[in-house]
Amino acid sequence: MRRIRESMSKGRLEAFSDGVLAIVITIMVLEMKAPHQAAELADLRPVAPLFLSYLLSFVYVGIYWNNHHHMFQVVDRISGGILWANLHLLFWLSLIPFVTAWLGQNRFAPTPVALYGAVLLMAAVAYYALERTILRAPGGNPVLASAIGRDLKGKLSLVCYAAAIGLSFVNRWIACAIYVLVALVWLVPDRRIERAMAGREKGG
Amino acid sequence: MRRIRESMSKGRLEAFSDGVLAIVITIMVLEMKAPHQAAELADLRPVAPLFLSYLLSFVYVGIYWNNHHHMFQVVDRISGGILWANLHLLFWLSLIPFVTAWLGQNRFAPTPVALYGAVLLMAAVAYYALERTILRAPGGNPVLASAIGRDLKGKLSLVCYAAAIGLSFVNRWIACAIYVLVALVWLVPDRRIERAMAGREKGG
Amino acid sequence: MRRIRESMSKGRLEAFSDGVLAIVITIMVLEMKAPHQAAELADLRPVAPLFLSYLLSFVYVGIYWNNHHHMFQVVDRISGGILWANLHLLFWLSLIPFVTAWLGQNRFAPTPVALYGAVLLMAAVAYYALERTILRAPGGNPVLASAIGRDLKGKLSLVCYAAAIGLSFVNRWIACAIYVLVALVWLVPDRRIERAMAGREKGG
Amino acid sequence: MRRIRESMSKGRLEAFSDGVLAIVITIMVLEMKAPHQAAELADLRPVAPLFLSYLLSFVYVGIYWNNHHHMFQVVDRISGGILWANLHLLFWLSLIPFVTAWLGQNRFAPTPVALYGAVLLMAAVAYYALERTILRAPGGNPVLASAIGRDLKGKLSLVCYAAAIGLSFVNRWIACAIYVLVALVWLVPDRRIERAMAGREKGG
Repeated sequence: MRRIRESMSKGRLEAFSDGVLAIVITIMVLEMKAPHQAAELADLRPVAPLFLSYLLSFVYVGIYWNNHHHMFQVVDRISGGILWANLHLLFWLSLIPFVTAWLGQNRFAPTPVALYGAVLLMAAVAYYALERTILRAPGGNPVLASAIGRDLKGKLSLVCYAAAIGLSFVNRWIACAIYVLVALVWLVPDRRIERAMAGREKGG
Repeated sequence: MRRIRESMSKGRLEAFSDGVLAIVITIMVLEMKAPHQAAELADLRPVAPLFLSYLLSFVYVGIYWNNHHHMFQVVDRISGGILWANLHLLFWLSLIPFVTAWLGQNRFAPTPVALYGAVLLMAAVAYYALERTILRAPGGNPVLASAIGRDLKGKLSLVCYAAAIGLSFVNRWIACAIYVLVALVWLVPDRRIERAMAGREKGG
Repeated sequence: MRRIRESMSKGRLEAFSDGVLAIVITIMVLEMKAPHQAAELADLRPVAPLFLSYLLSFVYVGIYWNNHHHMFQVVDRISGGILWANLHLLFWLSLIPFVTAWLGQNRFAPTPVALYGAVLLMAAVAYYALERTILRAPGGNPVLASAIGRDLKGKLSLVCYAAAIGLSFVNRWIACAIYVLVALVWLVPDRRIERAMAGREKGG
Repeated sequence: MRRIRESMSKGRLEAFSDGVLAIVITIMVLEMKAPHQAAELADLRPVAPLFLSYLLSFVYVGIYWNNHHHMFQVVDRISGGILWANLHLLFWLSLIPFVTAWLGQNRFAPTPVALYGAVLLMAAVAYYALERTILRAPGGNPVLASAIGRDLKGKLSLVCYAAAIGLSFVNRWIACAIYVLVALVWLVPDRRIERAMAGREKGG
């Protein structure tokens, strides 16, 4: 009984997060307004920066969904603290459509580039806080702990976002390159949790 | 068989509610229009009140999701009455994006502040009615009943919203402060249901 | 194994339908544009017809979700035909936000009132076709068949919508009254399926 | 334990995909703007091409959901590669609302017709890549492999889309006719997977 209730509880947290992430990833496309009375390929030129910013944000939200998915696979208990840490993460991710639109509509101008990085930074901080909340829960979570280890990738991302925010005002293309690079690093699927889980099964 | 059907029934009610709440919480961000041809931080100043109203509403919808989640964990049977009481709650919550936009676009003017409180009040009334519908179902729900008790927090919220509506026209910042305070009180996770469930497990 | 796969299949049909219905019911609220630079209660007057049409459509989509939910509780097998009959229903329901907006923006003018009825009629026809597709599936569905019986309520609704479409051009308020009345008749929870299922359990 | 974790993992991939597809299929309707202060049937004439393009895209997204649904019924293990191949498919499908709006707003002009085909082509390529990723997973998927066979239908669709892109600039109505024909071919439910699964059950 206890087990069933807990897994259902986790199911709803996952379902709600999936819903928000699915909406976030899809409504961004609404910012790409199809030009009226303009049916040539050249008419799409103003949409190009919006498309590029959409592509970048799609990949980022995809990465968050992917990591969220992996992390909650090894979570058994959902506490009130975890619920709110998760909502905190969703709040920052829900701002991605806004900064993506600002970025694309102003063709990657320095301030929008910096604000984009600031939202990525806050989302990363929120993700880190969610991770800590799960690890600090009663009983802890040794599988997740060993999977994350010192979490170099996560900490390096924070440093990269912070650096990119500063560099936006020096050369905005360097900042954009950093966002693309960090995304590529995360695109490689995170095998740490998969490995740690496989280890638990062998050991158990 | 009976048990499976009931839990599936509850599953769909939760899934539909999660869907609506996920959309409500996310489409509010669409009201924050990214300024075109305006790439300075100062250009975001008109967006600031929209951001603040978004933040407040995000927290409120999060609280409702959280409480909804806790309440339905102890519900076993879904009747037609519960389905409609739940849709009634979702109706009022679906109006939050509208009043949030009106609030933010008019920089917290008295009438929008009052209307915001009116929708919060109606949502709270609908939540209370949903609670009563669950408790009045055949067989009752002693776990929920003992968890809620006299529901001082719920009743006080109603009084606060009603007071804030009146106070909007005296000093709108007092009304806003009340909305923030009530939200903070609910942010503290409601341990009553968790405690009552733990009690049931020990006793059972 | 067979049973698990089938119920998962049904689960996805329900989840997708819940998703579409949750979005349909929520995006309608986006048509109610909060007036800018207009913070008096009188400024909301142009929004009033939109609010009324939203309220009516919210109830209709709620009824469809409710009936869909009850019907699929007694469905065990999902065939390709059922998937498409369900998508056909979702297509007509997805047009409700459009006709709701046209209705509200033109303050219940005759042609929008008639078109609103036409979409309700097509949705009802699609629901009826879905019901028939389920009953015609190999093995049939005796529980659903006995629950529906001659389906007087369903057939009467079709007649009412058709009558309302014609009456829109005579007196649009009669047509609107018919939409409200039919909605009220359906609001009363449909106990037929619940009763038929209870019967099956006793008999089984 | 292993089995439960895997099916939950698949459940989340399906839930997220269902969410994105449900939003894609529903937000397209937002492009059909209800005309203000225009309540005659003739006022809907500008909406007609948008309605036709919406109808075509609704059917296409429905087909993708349907095929996605059938394919994942025989998938047991979700790897990181499958997650990303699935997100890649969702990316191209998420562009359908944009090309649908461009198509409808420019009354099926040649370039929008070609771009519509290009997005269909990329989605089909992404679907094919997802299929290959599943088949290449450790252990393979003999049920899916035998169900797909040489996948003539899939490969012919790719050829048709490519042909239609070129033909858009010769005669756009031929290109549109190809899109409708391919959709009709896929509308016929794909019994290959159903048959292959039935075979597995008899054999197993």
